[in-house]
Amino acid sequence: MSGHAKTSFEDAPATPYVRIDLGRVDAAIDRMADHARSLGVALRPHAKTHKSIRLGHRQRAAGAVGLTVATVGEAEVFAEGGCDDLFIAYPLWIDAPKARRLARVMDRARVAVGVDSVESVAEMVAHGIRPEVVIEVDSGHHRSGVAPGAAGTIARYAADAGFRVRGAFTFPGHSYAPQTRASAAVDEASALLTASDAIAAVDLDVAVRSGGSTPSAEFAAPGLTELRPGVYVFGDAQQVELGSCQMEDVALTVVATVVSHAGGRVILDAGGKALGADRAPWSSGHGRLLEWPDARIVALSEHHATVEWGTGERPQLGSQVLVVPNHVCATVNLADSFVVAGSSERWQVDARGKNA
Amino acid sequence: MSGHAKTSFEDAPATPYVRIDLGRVDAAIDRMADHARSLGVALRPHAKTHKSIRLGHRQRAAGAVGLTVATVGEAEVFAEGGCDDLFIAYPLWIDAPKARRLARVMDRARVAVGVDSVESVAEMVAHGIRPEVVIEVDSGHHRSGVAPGAAGTIARYAADAGFRVRGAFTFPGHSYAPQTRASAAVDEASALLTASDAIAAVDLDVAVRSGGSTPSAEFAAPGLTELRPGVYVFGDAQQVELGSCQMEDVALTVVATVVSHAGGRVILDAGGKALGADRAPWSSGHGRLLEWPDARIVALSEHHATVEWGTGERPQLGSQVLVVPNHVCATVNLADSFVVAGSSERWQVDARGKNA
Repeated sequence: MSGHAKTSFEDAPATPYVRIDLGRVDAAIDRMADHARSLGVALRPHAKTHKSIRLGHRQRAAGAVGLTVATVGEAEVFAEGGCDDLFIAYPLWIDAPKARRLARVMDRARVAVGVDSVESVAEMVAHGIRPEVVIEVDSGHHRSGVAPGAAGTIARYAADAGFRVRGAFTFPGHSYAPQTRASAAVDEASALLTASDAIAAVDLDVAVRSGGSTPSAEFAAPGLTELRPGVYVFGDAQQVELGSCQMEDVALTVVATVVSHAGGRVILDAGGKALGADRAPWSSGHGRLLEWPDARIVALSEHHATVEWGTGERPQLGSQVLVVPNHVCATVNLADSFVVAGSSERWQVDARGKNA
Repeated sequence: MSGHAKTSFEDAPATPYVRIDLGRVDAAIDRMADHARSLGVALRPHAKTHKSIRLGHRQRAAGAVGLTVATVGEAEVFAEGGCDDLFIAYPLWIDAPKARRLARVMDRARVAVGVDSVESVAEMVAHGIRPEVVIEVDSGHHRSGVAPGAAGTIARYAADAGFRVRGAFTFPGHSYAPQTRASAAVDEASALLTASDAIAAVDLDVAVRSGGSTPSAEFAAPGLTELRPGVYVFGDAQQVELGSCQMEDVALTVVATVVSHAGGRVILDAGGKALGADRAPWSSGHGRLLEWPDARIVALSEHHATVEWGTGERPQLGSQVLVVPNHVCATVNLADSFVVAGSSERWQVDARGKNA
């Protein structure tokens, strides 16, 4: 498909819409599965990226031990969809309604949840629910997660309260920056080993040391038992610019129409409400175009992307182009469905908006 | 409601969720309606902010002449919902499927669409559809919209092709910056008057000179016949920081739970997937807290907001706080429903995701 031609598919939805290339998706799933096998670690992909039951099953079929999710809402969707092993990698605060929802998920699947405080464990006790727990530790991203050495205290408290403690997890979010992918992976392993020692020191077995992130996965250091990358399944402009995927691997794009040439500009009808507005300080713009490596989205509003075209002939008014969003997780969360390229299939984004 | 107490409503959805204060909404609707009356201009609020049929009707009841929308999808929802006067303030590229959809909207409502090229007019002719048109001109935001002096050429072309030309419109998006609200409003009036002269010079009447934007509305200069602000209905952190609303006027918040105190931080369960990730270079952070003016969201990921608390006691784990998003249009587009504060009502976000 060339953006120079006026392409418009009667069967396709109006632009902007989300398009996935299943060949590239499957290649990405296989590559990461092979990578985890080569490291001798379990793969538990983060399903918050795709929010799709079908894609979760494809990841399991390629060898994933289970899925990671971020919310009880996502856990509900994937358990209902047949996934029998779920880790909610988030320091949930489980009040009474959430406890009831989680109990129903636990009827269908093996479930572990993240904890980073004794208070959150006590709250689960108060509501009579005891999923397995994994202690969240901070490996340098400074978000949720206790200092690694403090994992033992929470683990002991949880064990005494009747929980099975699976181990420790961390998200090395500081791998999302140029030149820090490898060092963040080292921080990750170091934090997990320290946490593991702290948990062992209170006489508990540590089955799992779980790390995350697509940018750090390539550099995962010895000590991890599990990887939780998410974005790799599609790739996005951030990953291209971080060097963790190539443009030709990007499997999800937003199809957009050129709606204006005013002032010599190129304006697309895909704005922040379709692409998401995520932009890291080091990003080259608000997104890239799959087939025009020089083009940059230099401004983004709700329904407009302003493209600086670079070299080459700019596309005609009314032609369609494939936009690579900066952060694909945000894009998927905005879409009701994926259009499967080269087919008439449209797949529902099963867990769209299930963020609570 | 105090964030210090552990509040949790059995009837409320799990956090994060969107809450609206109808008293504040109605006050904002009335204030802007009064403002437009005092200027002697028509008010045509942009419904992309609220995407709610009920709120559109409230704006009409307060005197709005019609609604503005951004997409054919939004026009479908509001026409179906009973709004009989719609302006799609966007340079639509109307292919065959969109022409059929627009024709159905035109069966229910008086409809005008934006145009900024003769090609887009020719495309409508090719598909046999002739809504009223309004020429989009650039008043300094440099997005879509031709130079004001070029409006006559497109207007004449459209008139010759059988379209009723209503006039000209612009979006002074450069009003979204500190200290430029007033100057952007002057640019807006200047561009509209130039466009109006250009359209008159090709022997067409100009019924409408339509300007936009909540930040510029206060400074709207003589020459406009119509205002199209959107955000004013709820307000948001951007408007507070631009000075176009006060924190005590903000009518929409995202209710979030404090889930982590790790490392002395305050982490909320509302991230970019609930708040939206919009952040202007001049914003003080990724959002504000309604009841804690000193607090700032200093980092945002998909499901976490990291709050720098400032002075005062930080809220307990498990307590709920009201987050004021940076850009409320993005927030609403992520939500399936509004929870109406002080009632058991939940209102659907009727046009959520209708961005095509």
